[in-house]
Parts: sequence; C-alpha cells; structure tokens
Amino acid sequence: MSDLPSRIHIREVGPREGFQFEKANIPTPDKIAFVDALSETGLKEIEFVSFVSPKWVPQMADADAWVAGIAKKPGVDYYGIWLNIQGLERAVARRDKLTIRPSFSVPASNTFSVKNTNKPVAEKMAEMAEYVARYKALGYDTLNIGVTVAFGCNYEGAVPEARVIELLAEQETRARGLGMKIGSITLMDTMGWANPLSIKRVVGKVRERWPGHDVALHLHDTRGLAIANFCAGLEMGVAQYDAAVAGLGGCPFAAHKGAAGNICTEDTVFICQEMGIETGVDLDALIAIGETAERLVGHPLPGKVKVGGNLAGYRAKTAAGAAATV
Amino acid sequence: MSDLPSRIHIREVGPREGFQFEKANIPTPDKIAFVDALSETGLKEIEFVSFVSPKWVPQMADADAWVAGIAKKPGVDYYGIWLNIQGLERAVARRDKLTIRPSFSVPASNTFSVKNTNKPVAEKMAEMAEYVARYKALGYDTLNIGVTVAFGCNYEGAVPEARVIELLAEQETRARGLGMKIGSITLMDTMGWANPLSIKRVVGKVRERWPGHDVALHLHDTRGLAIANFCAGLEMGVAQYDAAVAGLGGCPFAAHKGAAGNICTEDTVFICQEMGIETGVDLDALIAIGETAERLVGHPLPGKVKVGGNLAGYRAKTAAGAAATV
Repeated sequence: MSDLPSRIHIREVGPREGFQFEKANIPTPDKIAFVDALSETGLKEIEFVSFVSPKWVPQMADADAWVAGIAKKPGVDYYGIWLNIQGLERAVARRDKLTIRPSFSVPASNTFSVKNTNKPVAEKMAEMAEYVARYKALGYDTLNIGVTVAFGCNYEGAVPEARVIELLAEQETRARGLGMKIGSITLMDTMGWANPLSIKRVVGKVRERWPGHDVALHLHDTRGLAIANFCAGLEMGVAQYDAAVAGLGGCPFAAHKGAAGNICTEDTVFICQEMGIETGVDLDALIAIGETAERLVGHPLPGKVKVGGNLAGYRAKTAAGAAATV
Repeated sequence: MSDLPSRIHIREVGPREGFQFEKANIPTPDKIAFVDALSETGLKEIEFVSFVSPKWVPQMADADAWVAGIAKKPGVDYYGIWLNIQGLERAVARRDKLTIRPSFSVPASNTFSVKNTNKPVAEKMAEMAEYVARYKALGYDTLNIGVTVAFGCNYEGAVPEARVIELLAEQETRARGLGMKIGSITLMDTMGWANPLSIKRVVGKVRERWPGHDVALHLHDTRGLAIANFCAGLEMGVAQYDAAVAGLGGCPFAAHKGAAGNICTEDTVFICQEMGIETGVDLDALIAIGETAERLVGHPLPGKVKVGGNLAGYRAKTAAGAAATV
C-alpha cells in the first residue's frame, strides 16, 4: 500500500442519490441549506439535483428552485444530472449555479437498461449523438464516459470484464466519430456486486487500455463491501470517488428495499485521514451534516463515524490531557 | 492480493459480545436455539457465554443453563469467557459442552484497564500466574496471548506499536517462567481505532517477532472500517478472525452508545465467498440467523448482506434463467 494516492477527490452525491428515494417531504429551504452547508466543508464537487420529471421523482419537483436558492461558493462545482435532453436544457439554463459536465454512460446489463429506462443498451448507446451535439454546441470538446452496473447485475448476474471494456471502447469510438475526445472513465457498482479483487481486475483492464485517463469509482454499499472496495481502488491509484454524506442513497430496487446506499462520505474521509491521504474535507463539519441528513429524512442513516466519533477529536483530547498532567 | 489465504477460520462471538448489551430479555430457550442454529452453519468455533456476575451482566445470569441446553455438535468447539478464576471454574464445570481455551490478554491502555476492571495493566499482568496454575493443573501446556485496545484508546489516544510488542513479550516471558509456551497471538481493536495501514504495521511487527505463531484479529466496526481492516489482515496472511453474526455487539462505552459492534460474520463470509477464500460456512443459513438475531434483540442490526442479499442466489437465478431460455 506504499503507492496509495497522496490526495483524492470526492464528489458528494448524497442529496442527489439520497433525497429522491425518501418518503419524507424535505422542504426546499432545508435542501438549499443542506447544499450550502456541504459547500463549507471543503468538498469541491457537489452533485445534488436531478432534472427529471416530477411525475417519476416527486422529490425533485423543486429542482429549479433548489438550484436557484443555493449560495454558489467560489471554487466549488455544483452538478445536476439528467436522463434526457430536456433535463440537460434545464441544467444549462442554470449555468449561473451549475457546472455542466459533459458525460455519458450506459449500463452493462440489458435487462436493467430495459427495466430502468425501457430501452435496450444499444438504443441507449445511440443516444450519445444528440447529447454530444448539444455539448459541442455549448463549446465542450471532451466527453466523460462510464459504465453503470459495471460489476454485476441482480437481473443478469456477473458482468464479464470484457463487456465493460467493449462498452467503453464503443463509447470512445462513437465520441471520436462525433468529434469529441474522451475524458475520465467512471465505473459504477450500481448494485453492489464488486469486491476488492474485481475492482482491481476491472480498473486494471481499464488502465491498460486507457492509460492516460482518470478513472473514477462510484461504489454502493449494498452488501457492506464499499469501504473495502474503496481501499482496493486506492491500491490501484484511483483518486476520484463519488460518495454520499451519511451513506444516503438506499437502493430503490424492490428486491433491495432497505439496502444500504452509496459509500458514506464521512467514513471515506475518515479512512483517508487515518491513512494520511488528503481529501481537503473538514471531517467534523461533514459529520454534523450527516446528523442533519438523518433529521431531514427522519430515520437513521448507515454512516458509522458519525456515531463512533472522529479519532482526531479523541487524539486532541488525550494530547491535551497528557499536556495538562505534565 | 495474490497471496491471500485460501481459507480462513472464523470464531463466532456474536451471542457473547452482543446479547450482554441488549435491553431485551432474551429467553434462555431462544438463546439455546440460537447457538444450535449457529452450530449447523459450518462454523467450527462458537463463543457464546460469559461467566460473569449477574449483578454486572444480568443478561448472562442464565449462563449455566444456556450451556447445559445446547446440543453439542461434533466437530464444533464452544467457548465461554471469564474475568476471574471463579468464572473459569464455572466453564471447567461445563467441559461436557465447552472447550477450555487457555488464554490471557491485557489491555494496551492503563486508563481503560482501570475504568473497565478497576486494576492497572501491571496488576492485570500479574494475574497471569493464577490462571496459568489452573490451566496447567487442567493439563494444558500452551497459553494463547493477546492485547486488547491494541490500536488506540478513546481515553489514551493512539497506542504505539512498540507498546503492543512489549506487552506481548512480557506475556511470553511470564508464561515461559511459569512453564507454559505461547500459542496464538490475538490483536483486538476494541475501540475501533485501527485502519488498514495500522493493521499491516502491527501485524507485521508481531509476525517479525513471533514468526511461528498464528495471529488472530478481533475487529470492531465502530467507525466503519472493519471490513477494510479485515482485507488488510488477509493481505498480511492472517487466517483467524472473530466475527459476530448480524454485527451484534454494539459498544457499551457511554461515549459510543449506538456505535456499531463487531465485524459482521455474514459480511465477512460474503467477501470471502466473492474473493474465493474458503470459510466452510453456509452463508444463506447464516443470513437467516442474522435475521433471527434482529428479532431477538428487537431492533435492526448493522450487517449489510442480510439486506442486500447473497450474490450466490442471484447468480444461480440468472444462470437458471439463462439456461431456461437456451
């Protein structure tokens, strides 16, 4: 583990992943205050909103007002996501607050793709053209690509590594054909199928094929392995991770009701602190926001360090005690 | 990770660690059925009872009846723990069911030692003589040694690695002086201070000093790092772990009320299954017992795979589906 990255970058995705699945109706001012609090922790990337139909995701009905309300902090990038061009246009309309990240991904599972979006993977892949046309018109020349359900699928089982590479390669070919180069490559363990060995294998294959490109990991803690998978990513030199404060983002799939959500941001920042890896994030401030998240959703959330406590505090206390008794 | 152990041994400690802190009054027949169910999972070591005063731990008031009631399964070792010679004698009286494991440990934190047992570490260390006398009288020649609070202490802060080695060396010297050799060496992260790097450092130092001895790890998930610490142990070749079904064993320390307990047995068995490491344990049977544990204690327990689901089931289903459509 001597070649762990000295610094990692965390994209906070908790409000976006988490709030949409919650039964509690969180008032817009609370959502705005939540993002503003995240802005003060040192996090440099906050993905908090989905521009989707309120018919499907009523919790995002206030998306535009939410974005309008935040106090944009200099040096922080705020993101939304979209599932169609109309959604992208809503994000573009809020470029006073939001950073547009030209990105595209497809699932490695056809069954998931059909169940989730009513479209097979091939059809999803073909949609790249219209996104790229719009990104280019906005002045972007680099497309960040990715694969969801990249490590396994509850419907289709294990995903062969070759399939992930094939889907990324097809995205690269199409992007180039459309006049864009590719940027970072995100591997998403959407259903919590990854383990430390599969993380290393797939990341290794991606690095081998695309050595010059940043790799990012999006890890779900569905089966309790997220923090171990994170460490496997570190050992592969991966320095970009999505994470969700308090572990927001419990799985919406019916078979997984009550399952854990994304890897918890505080726990991720904590393990980095303990291993000497910089995140730039104020862990105590983040823990306080994790507690706020539990109040907003009205039930306990899975993050552990917010209960167990930041060791930095214990160290300071014991050092002060030791100093006082000298 | 190519030199991970091909097989690990898990000592189940859930009923012993977990039930004593629970408010629910679990009827003795349910406790007996719980241990009997664990016996059928393939687990070969089950530590389930504490021979302590019912004044301090009312949940263990039925310890003798509990032990008497279990159906001892051939090939499975059942253990109790004790905090004094009277407790040891109660275990010895039940050798029809229990295996006596001659063991001894001291905490690396003097403050913890005094708060927990009203005795400083030096005094605890001196108690070895009376235990060893009794173990020898029972015919044993090997003492398993260990250090609790080995990675850090909420009262005293970080524990220097040298202190752990010193405490183990003193145990070895004393044991030899008393005519016993030492066996396995257990490192206990009692307060959840370890991280993957400190696991590797301390295990490395212990291995260097005692190359011929098995090392065992007892990991608490207080701050969410237990499964990552387990992987670090695997990478160091450690093949013996304590674990608690469903993650039983929430921390009793006042400052940690509600904190997570031991590393969860199902999640540990699951990550091993996924990485091709044998445990000999039937994961589905264990998951069912994790659900029983939640019913017995009357609240959710932290294990994740019991909610997320065993991937073996999903793989079988998808394979069957694929076969059916051929």
